[in-house]
Amino acid sequence: MVDPTLRDQYISINEIYNIGFNGIITNAYILKKHRSAVTDIHEYLNFNGVVMTDSGAYQILRYGDIEVNNREIVQYQCEIKSDIGVILDIPTSHDVDRDTALRSADETYRRAVEVLDIVEKCRDTLWTLPIQGGTHLDILKRYAEKSVDIFYSGYSLYALGSPTTLLEQYGFDRIIDMIFTVRSTIPFSAPLHLFGAGHPLIVPFAIALGIDTMDSASYILYAKDGRYMGSRATYRLEDLNYFPCECPVCSKHSPEEVREMPINKRIEFLALHNLYTIFREFKEVKQAIKEGRLWEYLEDKANSHPAARRAFEQLKKYLEFIYRHTPIVKPDARAVFILSEDSIYNPKIMIPRRRVIERFEPIVNCVNLVPYSRGKILLDSGIEGSECISYIYTPILGIAPLHLIDRYPYSQFELGLKITKNSIIDDLSYLIFEALLKIVEISNKVVVNMYICSDVEWQEELYRKLVDLISMGETNIKIVLKANRC
Amino acid sequence: MVDPTLRDQYISINEIYNIGFNGIITNAYILKKHRSAVTDIHEYLNFNGVVMTDSGAYQILRYGDIEVNNREIVQYQCEIKSDIGVILDIPTSHDVDRDTALRSADETYRRAVEVLDIVEKCRDTLWTLPIQGGTHLDILKRYAEKSVDIFYSGYSLYALGSPTTLLEQYGFDRIIDMIFTVRSTIPFSAPLHLFGAGHPLIVPFAIALGIDTMDSASYILYAKDGRYMGSRATYRLEDLNYFPCECPVCSKHSPEEVREMPINKRIEFLALHNLYTIFREFKEVKQAIKEGRLWEYLEDKANSHPAARRAFEQLKKYLEFIYRHTPIVKPDARAVFILSEDSIYNPKIMIPRRRVIERFEPIVNCVNLVPYSRGKILLDSGIEGSECISYIYTPILGIAPLHLIDRYPYSQFELGLKITKNSIIDDLSYLIFEALLKIVEISNKVVVNMYICSDVEWQEELYRKLVDLISMGETNIKIVLKANRC
Repeated sequence: MVDPTLRDQYISINEIYNIGFNGIITNAYILKKHRSAVTDIHEYLNFNGVVMTDSGAYQILRYGDIEVNNREIVQYQCEIKSDIGVILDIPTSHDVDRDTALRSADETYRRAVEVLDIVEKCRDTLWTLPIQGGTHLDILKRYAEKSVDIFYSGYSLYALGSPTTLLEQYGFDRIIDMIFTVRSTIPFSAPLHLFGAGHPLIVPFAIALGIDTMDSASYILYAKDGRYMGSRATYRLEDLNYFPCECPVCSKHSPEEVREMPINKRIEFLALHNLYTIFREFKEVKQAIKEGRLWEYLEDKANSHPAARRAFEQLKKYLEFIYRHTPIVKPDARAVFILSEDSIYNPKIMIPRRRVIERFEPIVNCVNLVPYSRGKILLDSGIEGSECISYIYTPILGIAPLHLIDRYPYSQFELGLKITKNSIIDDLSYLIFEALLKIVEISNKVVVNMYICSDVEWQEELYRKLVDLISMGETNIKIVLKANRC
Repeated sequence: MVDPTLRDQYISINEIYNIGFNGIITNAYILKKHRSAVTDIHEYLNFNGVVMTDSGAYQILRYGDIEVNNREIVQYQCEIKSDIGVILDIPTSHDVDRDTALRSADETYRRAVEVLDIVEKCRDTLWTLPIQGGTHLDILKRYAEKSVDIFYSGYSLYALGSPTTLLEQYGFDRIIDMIFTVRSTIPFSAPLHLFGAGHPLIVPFAIALGIDTMDSASYILYAKDGRYMGSRATYRLEDLNYFPCECPVCSKHSPEEVREMPINKRIEFLALHNLYTIFREFKEVKQAIKEGRLWEYLEDKANSHPAARRAFEQLKKYLEFIYRHTPIVKPDARAVFILSEDSIYNPKIMIPRRRVIERFEPIVNCVNLVPYSRGKILLDSGIEGSECISYIYTPILGIAPLHLIDRYPYSQFELGLKITKNSIIDDLSYLIFEALLKIVEISNKVVVNMYICSDVEWQEELYRKLVDLISMGETNIKIVLKANRC
């Protein structure tokens, strides 16, 4: 949703629509106060896309109180036929104390209850139930839980309030916590809107954690402040020698030319560019999702700016939640990219990796460990006719039964990372050791034929680490590890 | 340089110029063979930008021999007033054996000598001296060395030949080796051209290693093959649901619409888009260089695709070369970004980090180690009036004398990475230990007051590691480490 800030319109709604945005958000409070003649918001705006109306909560956040009450503004949004309406919630600024946060969350909830009769009747508008509490996660969680009872009595989407002030300070890690708290508490099928967020650096992380829609007026606010949004950072116009962008407006002008424009033209230029940049970000994320490479996209984004890295590191705290909700289907024949050490957390790698270990119950007393790279074991002969059960092993992806070698992801990954880091080999040694312990539990003793073939360095290192692990405690009499160098 | 492949022109030279490219490359051999009436290349093309002409070497690479000799084609390029000409070198394909590579390198050198009289006289054309040898680095090096003698007798730029076939296979790591070999052998001030390279995934790495110009016809070759260049990957048009791009042509169409275009329109669309994408990449790199954040850009790029990661890992082999040629000036008040573990190799971090250790010769027997974060020590009191010399410490950036705390980079870095990884603390402990050993060499004994204040976890870990390091060998009687918890 784009907030075209109707009062000083540098960019027409039509232009916003033409860039690709099919929804806008505008302010019902301002309309009610200054444009009393409005009877149909689509007619008034001459816009056939989706119109969301906010209630004036932002004005409360910025200026304190406003001159309209909750029931009035909800009724008004219904009357002007808003597609998506919002109750008059009380935003929680990120820097308030617990008591203030609690009051805003509680009063917001009370108001959501207060208008239940209106939202139940006004069925042509989808109603938004905001959850407040700011960075006080326990308050957010409590009111997210409470609101579940009333949600299905007339509401269609949840919203997480007031990250705006945090976003301005690039406090992305705390926003990640807030999103997770609400997303993991409300029903998974319920849409969740994030108010006031649209910066390219936060968009992919918010979406990865389950945000469905967002709105933002940042394109124009930044433009008025002379700020140029990039996918990797925000620049001040005066600091740019080149536009790192190929959008229609940047393709036609140099930064120097834009700096010499009259102020209104300059703002229009920046606003249009910012809109193109935000829209591109959404297209990038959608395309990444379609091709099953959202995790890869997040890894990439994490290196684009320290604030994005913080968001990514914070998101990694919630991997279990992400894994639980990742569909276990093979994406359209797309190789998994192994880009960095974080690739190990890629759901397309971690889910099968764990599954192999969880289901690892072979009643055997002999295991072959065979190194492999993409779809090909690195061993010409030696295991045919073996009575041992054979597992393939490789860094990051872990181990898998030999017969999975031509299956996804074992046959379809592309290795970019160099396997020289100790931590990567450590990880693989622990994983194999864990699997061997599972065998020992059942069979009491196991003989392991570890094949070491080509690209030998990391395999020798792995062997040494396994020897160390096995020699600790009593496992050295139960696990007999033999190296077979080919 | 864009190669507009004159024979089947989907995109006019004018359009290429309007996108922003101010130079094109075209083929003198084809002109000579088919357009005998050409007398002035700029007039013929109706183009006032820079025109580089290739000699037909590419045709040799693809089709074997051609019907013109070296002196003829060099003379011809002079006559048609090419801005940048190339001798008729013998390209080395990446997959040839040593002998073939040696013959192509040697014959290329011989031909460079053979036309010295022409290039010396024809001063309005800048002449290119190609170095061949392919992936046989010793051959590349030998002929790069040999060519230095003749370079200043009439040549203006070097070129590295034939990465095209390697590029097609994303063999970026080997191209990095080739670039380094030539760049580190020829004079640092001599421009170096890279033939046939323009893919957004290799461009920043090539530039970081000192490539000055490149040429590529990939925009149209890819387009004819239905391939859509992205800054992060190349897509097949049929695989795209959304265009991850905001260029003027992508802003107007959806992938579905483009798929339904007639073939000529589709190729034109893809060619234009590809050109915009390549041009954006150059603008991104130029902007990153201007603001002193090329390393950060490379870190980001490395996570965009496994092939880019391989290029980055390979580039890290040549860090000493990069450090040697990095100007030691503070960029315009730009904070260094700490994005990943690779940030430690950022020249803006590694150069001052090493310099502190190299110049570490305080004749003292007492050192305070004070933790800090951006421009602020994490300690309220305790070191005022201390007779010990005080050093600040922090992960990645290392240690520095206290008085440097408000200087770049110690006052201007932005931390994105979480300091939880063992390897990061390991690194810092080795660095500090090395500094302490330098003191012990002079003063025989040193007392270290290590302050551990706020954000304590990594500091406690560092302390434990220092204790371990000191307790090895005889250093435990020479270095007395005391923890001061505040």
